Amino acid sequence: MTTPLGIAVIGTGRMGTDHVRRIQEVISGARVTAVADVDEARAKAVAARVDGCAAHTDPVAAMASAGVDAVLVASPGPAHEEAITAALARDLPVLCEKPLTPDAASALRLVEAEQAHGRRRVQVGFMRRYDPEYTSLKALLETGQLGRPLMLHQRHRNVASASFFTSEMLISDSVAHEVDATRWLTGDEITAVTVLRPTPSANAPEGLADPQFVVMETASGALADVEIFVNCGFGYQVQAETVCERGTARIGDGHALVTAMAGRWGGSIAQDWTERFATAYDREVQAWVDATRRGEVTGPSMWDGYAAAAVCDAGVRSLHEGGRVEVELAERPDFYR
Amino acid sequence: MTTPLGIAVIGTGRMGTDHVRRIQEVISGARVTAVADVDEARAKAVAARVDGCAAHTDPVAAMASAGVDAVLVASPGPAHEEAITAALARDLPVLCEKPLTPDAASALRLVEAEQAHGRRRVQVGFMRRYDPEYTSLKALLETGQLGRPLMLHQRHRNVASASFFTSEMLISDSVAHEVDATRWLTGDEITAVTVLRPTPSANAPEGLADPQFVVMETASGALADVEIFVNCGFGYQVQAETVCERGTARIGDGHALVTAMAGRWGGSIAQDWTERFATAYDREVQAWVDATRRGEVTGPSMWDGYAAAAVCDAGVRSLHEGGRVEVELAERPDFYR
Amino acid sequence: MTTPLGIAVIGTGRMGTDHVRRIQEVISGARVTAVADVDEARAKAVAARVDGCAAHTDPVAAMASAGVDAVLVASPGPAHEEAITAALARDLPVLCEKPLTPDAASALRLVEAEQAHGRRRVQVGFMRRYDPEYTSLKALLETGQLGRPLMLHQRHRNVASASFFTSEMLISDSVAHEVDATRWLTGDEITAVTVLRPTPSANAPEGLADPQFVVMETASGALADVEIFVNCGFGYQVQAETVCERGTARIGDGHALVTAMAGRWGGSIAQDWTERFATAYDREVQAWVDATRRGEVTGPSMWDGYAAAAVCDAGVRSLHEGGRVEVELAERPDFYR
Amino acid sequence: MTTPLGIAVIGTGRMGTDHVRRIQEVISGARVTAVADVDEARAKAVAARVDGCAAHTDPVAAMASAGVDAVLVASPGPAHEEAITAALARDLPVLCEKPLTPDAASALRLVEAEQAHGRRRVQVGFMRRYDPEYTSLKALLETGQLGRPLMLHQRHRNVASASFFTSEMLISDSVAHEVDATRWLTGDEITAVTVLRPTPSANAPEGLADPQFVVMETASGALADVEIFVNCGFGYQVQAETVCERGTARIGDGHALVTAMAGRWGGSIAQDWTERFATAYDREVQAWVDATRRGEVTGPSMWDGYAAAAVCDAGVRSLHEGGRVEVELAERPDFYR
Repeated sequence: MTTPLGIAVIGTGRMGTDHVRRIQEVISGARVTAVADVDEARAKAVAARVDGCAAHTDPVAAMASAGVDAVLVASPGPAHEEAITAALARDLPVLCEKPLTPDAASALRLVEAEQAHGRRRVQVGFMRRYDPEYTSLKALLETGQLGRPLMLHQRHRNVASASFFTSEMLISDSVAHEVDATRWLTGDEITAVTVLRPTPSANAPEGLADPQFVVMETASGALADVEIFVNCGFGYQVQAETVCERGTARIGDGHALVTAMAGRWGGSIAQDWTERFATAYDREVQAWVDATRRGEVTGPSMWDGYAAAAVCDAGVRSLHEGGRVEVELAERPDFYR
Repeated sequence: MTTPLGIAVIGTGRMGTDHVRRIQEVISGARVTAVADVDEARAKAVAARVDGCAAHTDPVAAMASAGVDAVLVASPGPAHEEAITAALARDLPVLCEKPLTPDAASALRLVEAEQAHGRRRVQVGFMRRYDPEYTSLKALLETGQLGRPLMLHQRHRNVASASFFTSEMLISDSVAHEVDATRWLTGDEITAVTVLRPTPSANAPEGLADPQFVVMETASGALADVEIFVNCGFGYQVQAETVCERGTARIGDGHALVTAMAGRWGGSIAQDWTERFATAYDREVQAWVDATRRGEVTGPSMWDGYAAAAVCDAGVRSLHEGGRVEVELAERPDFYR
Repeated sequence: MTTPLGIAVIGTGRMGTDHVRRIQEVISGARVTAVADVDEARAKAVAARVDGCAAHTDPVAAMASAGVDAVLVASPGPAHEEAITAALARDLPVLCEKPLTPDAASALRLVEAEQAHGRRRVQVGFMRRYDPEYTSLKALLETGQLGRPLMLHQRHRNVASASFFTSEMLISDSVAHEVDATRWLTGDEITAVTVLRPTPSANAPEGLADPQFVVMETASGALADVEIFVNCGFGYQVQAETVCERGTARIGDGHALVTAMAGRWGGSIAQDWTERFATAYDREVQAWVDATRRGEVTGPSMWDGYAAAAVCDAGVRSLHEGGRVEVELAERPDFYR
Repeated sequence: MTTPLGIAVIGTGRMGTDHVRRIQEVISGARVTAVADVDEARAKAVAARVDGCAAHTDPVAAMASAGVDAVLVASPGPAHEEAITAALARDLPVLCEKPLTPDAASALRLVEAEQAHGRRRVQVGFMRRYDPEYTSLKALLETGQLGRPLMLHQRHRNVASASFFTSEMLISDSVAHEVDATRWLTGDEITAVTVLRPTPSANAPEGLADPQFVVMETASGALADVEIFVNCGFGYQVQAETVCERGTARIGDGHALVTAMAGRWGGSIAQDWTERFATAYDREVQAWVDATRRGEVTGPSMWDGYAAAAVCDAGVRSLHEGGRVEVELAERPDFYR
């Protein structure tokens, strides 16, 4: 294909608008040909900045407009099932922002719909798989030098949470990333989850269980723990350490610029994910565009989206009920192997 | 006191012999005036290297010999109760290597004996409290700059375990250090323990549950996790990260000498605790000698030894039975406040 | 401009071919419409992989072919003057790989030609100005927090030099980057250079003065030293530390993935510049394309290319004659302020 | 020898008083039996804190008093020649704080006096040779793994200089340490020195040439550069990087406690040498006491003191006159090989 891939972007909030900018100004081989948002003014404002881009309020209409070869879904999670179903009906390739859907049941319906469709069309936006540090960690694990992963220690810290953030969202919105990273790095399904609640930080909003400490067990007996702390106050940090039979490997220290000043040496900490993961998003969308133009689907599948949702469902139950909760996961179809 | 403190060293195995060397050649203000070991030849060999040092097979006889002002107990754990009881009977100050005793019940008997004696005489050898990195971490926490500790992530790795090492000893012998460090750093008693068993490393001896992952809860609701991995193969590492309300602090990275060679930058990892904690042992014994010469007892108390034993007992039960086990701790007497 | 910028790439060796790939597959808003190389087969092979790209042996013919809006010069240094002159004659924007030309005299002729042309058209490929670490260092200096730069310590190490590499090329080819970085970071012209020759490494080819140590003085009295070591054997390292009145700042440590294994902690070192500076090249070309489409020239100017050549000329004289050599620099025209 | 070594401490200023504390309270096998200071009250105050310690105003009288086995010279540099001469006359072992004497001529007289005495008695206080980081660097170089040292980059920064500090003292007082470290690490004499003067920092006292940049050449052709910056404002830093044929090694980063707080990660920087080099001083004096009790002299010799003085003399000339100054060094006698 020599002409650029025409993309309909569904949802023009913060994430969707950033993807429009990325497709138009950063990556190669694609352009935005339609956008859709329930907020018509917002959709029009975004479309106005892109040459030849149509604005819609209906996602299906956007997908049906001229020059659309593929769909990027960046609307809120509850709208994903309908958008993906419509895209499958038109046989359009999809990059769907995480979460695939808000719960395991709806995610499983989509998994079944794609199988019924008979051909993989959907990639889920677990963009950490495209972060240079995560990919170097994965590549190192795959060499086998360190032996089998036994434990995975992860840290996920945000400066402050948005006002609408609930205790459950620490699991389903934030730890969801570590759920996928754990599955990807270990190559293993997660079988049980325990969510522990230390006394909340005085800096967390009243009623929010923040931080939380999540322990996950995998099918092969590896253990993955996650500190999630969304009101840590000092910065955005994502760190992961794998402990293997012959060594450990750690990412996320962020030592690029080191200063010495006023009695202290050190560096600055990113203040949000746009700074820490900008490159990961660029690479994710470029990889999706490239694969789509070759007629392939290469990234995280709907099965990955479903499995993450199933683990998060168990995590939320553990948060509510306490103790260890086993993950209920459907049998993995050959279609997704 | 202007003359050196005369010390009887009980037990002349690896640790006792190293303490004899330390007292004679490294620290100031003390000398070894007697040693005792069940192995008479070993006791005599050590004594022969020290001017004016008597060799005994009976600890009580060693304590009773001329020029003994204080006792350093470095015999195996099961012998500690008898040695400390004898020292208390003679009103001698004691530095007792950890563990205080092998179980909480016997430790509690000693706690009661010291109270009956009416005066604190015994310091327990939790030497991490004297390590420069741990003391700087403790000092930072005490400034209050970081706010209250919410979580404490700890790593404790050994190259390989001795042949006699059991799954229980990962808790009672190794994690015992993190139990004390957690109590000391948070200023809080530990109320419950959960020991998790990932699939053992292929490099661990058959039947040894190695690594283990230990989660401890404190009275104020802080959470402390410990990775204990005694056959990690690559080095001896002790790391601790405290996560507080306004920041984190981490020790144990060990960056003293950094090389770049053959495509790699980095440094060497200590191969055992004598390298990592040599300074801590020197400072511990010097501090004990100095306090003793001033007529004071300043270090970790028998209460600390007892509390660690009670937590380890709960940890071993969790290892055996699975799940969370609450710690049974006697009421803390004013004597130890 | 809504259509992509059409670019003629002059020179299809390693660098030119990589730029073709970058324009086609990585960056946004441009495409390669013509290539030229003295090796006709090579030019044709590259052109064949790009839709609608013409192959030429004559650079001027390539610039004159259909759809060419701008020129990227990646031919050997001695060919740059003719290529840039031809591009100026056609009023085409140019991105010229460093060095601008092989010596100060020819560079100065180009500086004069662009002034005679009356409008800035040429950007020189000092890509370190686009490296994220360098840009963060520059941004920090510009905040003024650290005060005025007093000294700049730089390290530039390659695994091994190519067989054709001469002692002079350590200055004119390698240190040329630090010459520009020094000028850019300090905002100051370099007034004198001293090149010191330690005893060569046994691993350097016979007769090559490697390593060298270069000391540069700037107009405001700052000092910049550079270790250049092109047969260091262990990796590609580019490091810079600025020492200012109130603190220091350092880049180039490269701590992304840290492992602990076999008694060592640390990370890998890049093996060549394509790994270390891939992002810098991507950003450089994207920035040039974006500015060109807006009708602007924003990057390093021909004055920067000329000044670097003048400093390198002085450096080569110092290498040959020993001692300190003053830099002969023409008066800076207002055109380049 | 089973009784402690009796030491006369000459000079009870800051350094002498600290050595008295060290001998009495930190190290093993020695005690202070006499002190001398021109300030009688100061000598008496120090002596009063030590059991059985005599106070003198005359160094020779202190050396002659009862129980003196060895002499530690901590008086100002100009007083060293007379004190050492007196100690040699009594055949007493000496540890003399650096500098040996204020200039090369007087140092050479002492070198000749010790040879005439016929037996090595004097160790010079270059305490960096006892710092754990420096000793690990030296040990690594001696393994030969990295090949021959080609370059040595050193940084020496102080928060602020004392009011009496002159531009010359940056060389003779501060860089003197790097002069010895360079000789020790490379095993090579220094043959020429060039001192460069960047524009002084606005934070340096009026008239003080601070920072300075010193380049030293060794007999085998290695190059050693030193940044000396005594009003850097932010902390006390001593760093050294050796660049060898097959790799580099660096000390002085100081990563013991790493925090993340308020948008920054990093650690604190020592504020003066007592913090950075406390262990080095302890080890130096312990090693001197141990060797002396064995009847040996093992540390830096008077030749090392003389050679450092000769290099500093050349450095001060380079500071005054500009340009490269060759070091005038007497032939090294076999006595000091």
